[in-house]
Amino acid sequence: MRADLALVGFGNVGRRFARLLEERRDWLSLDYDLDCRVVGIATRHHGSVFRDSGIDAVASAVSVEGGHPLTEGGAPLADGTLDVIHRLSSTDAPLKVLIETTTLDIEAGQPAIDYVRDALQAGCHAVTANKGPAAFAYEELSALAYDRDVSFLFEGVVMDGVPIFNLVRESLPAVEITGFRGVLNSTTNHILSALEDGEGFDAALQRMQEMGIAEADPSLDVDGWDAAAKTSALANVLMRARMTPQAVDREGIGPATARLAMAAKARGARVRLVASAQRTAQGVVTSVRPVELPETDLLAGLRGMANALVLQTDLLGEIAVSQLGGSLTQTAYALVSDLVTIRRRQRSGPHGAGPGRSL
Amino acid sequence: MRADLALVGFGNVGRRFARLLEERRDWLSLDYDLDCRVVGIATRHHGSVFRDSGIDAVASAVSVEGGHPLTEGGAPLADGTLDVIHRLSSTDAPLKVLIETTTLDIEAGQPAIDYVRDALQAGCHAVTANKGPAAFAYEELSALAYDRDVSFLFEGVVMDGVPIFNLVRESLPAVEITGFRGVLNSTTNHILSALEDGEGFDAALQRMQEMGIAEADPSLDVDGWDAAAKTSALANVLMRARMTPQAVDREGIGPATARLAMAAKARGARVRLVASAQRTAQGVVTSVRPVELPETDLLAGLRGMANALVLQTDLLGEIAVSQLGGSLTQTAYALVSDLVTIRRRQRSGPHGAGPGRSL
Repeated sequence: MRADLALVGFGNVGRRFARLLEERRDWLSLDYDLDCRVVGIATRHHGSVFRDSGIDAVASAVSVEGGHPLTEGGAPLADGTLDVIHRLSSTDAPLKVLIETTTLDIEAGQPAIDYVRDALQAGCHAVTANKGPAAFAYEELSALAYDRDVSFLFEGVVMDGVPIFNLVRESLPAVEITGFRGVLNSTTNHILSALEDGEGFDAALQRMQEMGIAEADPSLDVDGWDAAAKTSALANVLMRARMTPQAVDREGIGPATARLAMAAKARGARVRLVASAQRTAQGVVTSVRPVELPETDLLAGLRGMANALVLQTDLLGEIAVSQLGGSLTQTAYALVSDLVTIRRRQRSGPHGAGPGRSL
Repeated sequence: MRADLALVGFGNVGRRFARLLEERRDWLSLDYDLDCRVVGIATRHHGSVFRDSGIDAVASAVSVEGGHPLTEGGAPLADGTLDVIHRLSSTDAPLKVLIETTTLDIEAGQPAIDYVRDALQAGCHAVTANKGPAAFAYEELSALAYDRDVSFLFEGVVMDGVPIFNLVRESLPAVEITGFRGVLNSTTNHILSALEDGEGFDAALQRMQEMGIAEADPSLDVDGWDAAAKTSALANVLMRARMTPQAVDREGIGPATARLAMAAKARGARVRLVASAQRTAQGVVTSVRPVELPETDLLAGLRGMANALVLQTDLLGEIAVSQLGGSLTQTAYALVSDLVTIRRRQRSGPHGAGPGRSL
């Protein structure tokens, strides 16, 4: 079955996705009867293109990486992203999917929310690696997707391609998530590991930036905003919290954390930036803050890029999922796995297998 | 949609399953349109019963726990299990499922393999918590299931209800598993934790038996057979190894392990019974043996009942799934989750979404 894709955002993740799609083309076709074709690409700095008969997205990636504007699909479009989404909705493919990979705006999750909403309203599926839509507008967008019988998916938002949302949706039927705690931001975990070893905060942060691991705006990492956005997305989806990242009780790390981290290590403990959520009588209570953990805690054992999420459940006790190393390929893979989910649901008929599948 | 179930084996797991089915009846009905009815029960010591109109399985559990034979379904059957499976195949329910929970025979996986084969051949789905069928006969039984367009599922075989097979099947499309390593046996992990703390081997094992954690035949645990059966099942399913537990390079733990465990702890390390598999040019190589691990290893951090499996993948690097506490409910839940998988596949039409779903 043919799927037409429009890529909105064509940075590192979008371009890695375009290549991964080619690398796994046979797999997708043989195992899932899914034949993906990129028909549109919208970028911030390199123009936007659309062609009904398909674009060579890998050539487009090479072009953008060489600093050239997009021309693969013919003349650039006048109204960029909006045109690309509009034209996607009018192709004759049985599956039409927006692949949204713009960068996070921590104030309001825009314009990613608008892009996803436009696509869903036009009857297209929407897949995003951006935390904004699920962190700020999960209830609205998932209801809209359900109404139009399309999917709104975002597996890459937490722990890249390691399945979290998909795991709960597909593999934990009839299980209630009562809370969670996790280490979800790699930059701060790297820095905390370095602080324990006696490195200074500023030096460690600078090293993370040079390695391309820290966000360009370090506040997103060290002030806990990235972890707060992930916490909000998880709480909204797994616990129906209807919250935004601003509602997370948030404390980041800074130069003063070094003393805490070293003192903890001397006591045989570890400081980690822990994201957590608990269902209480007053609703879902969430926080992101540095916490001293005993060495025996699974989260204390995470070094460098490793992330982990401990899910607290009614039937299965605590289950942890750990990502022992992260990479761009993992985030790009998350988008591919969401495409497969869309294909499977399409085969299952309207609304998949009932309300449980709308998650 | 109605599902008729026959429970073959009605020990702790089977009886907990019968109760869990009642506890989650509304969930299954509302979220998955699945209305389960137990029509047959076969036990080793309390007779076997079948009634087309359904049996009160919870009352049957109470009866068995009181030491009484089964009478709920009318007169006991002459030919026990075979009759129950045969009669299951002739009900008019759209879904007919064997729930197989007999105990593991480590020599050949029997009679569980025969029960599963009989059910599949008769067009019934088969769900088992017994390691035998997947550890000894995965290729044959999965091919038979595919041929009859029914499912052969066994989520409870490794790490109880924590999804492993389901995770790989549903949430890691197009990812290749290149190897794994894990701590998969709770009894030996409990004992190793105790040995580190200076307890003697025999005392620790006896305590595990008194707590009901160790198998009645301690060799299954301490000689590594339970872990070997799980390793074989994982390698067969995730890596198409076509092997049996006897082919696992296996070494258990004993009184002599105490010295190793204490010496390791003194060095800041831990001894764990590690199950592993690697794809090599000579095929899939598997082992179960005590291994000294650095404290920073995720497996080293597992205490007592905790289990974990680290999957090595081509696209996502290493992913770990940890079960921080085990219980009978978790194993029973695995059977329920397999029922949901069957219902979802049924909705997806013949063979689910292609070969990728046959796993």
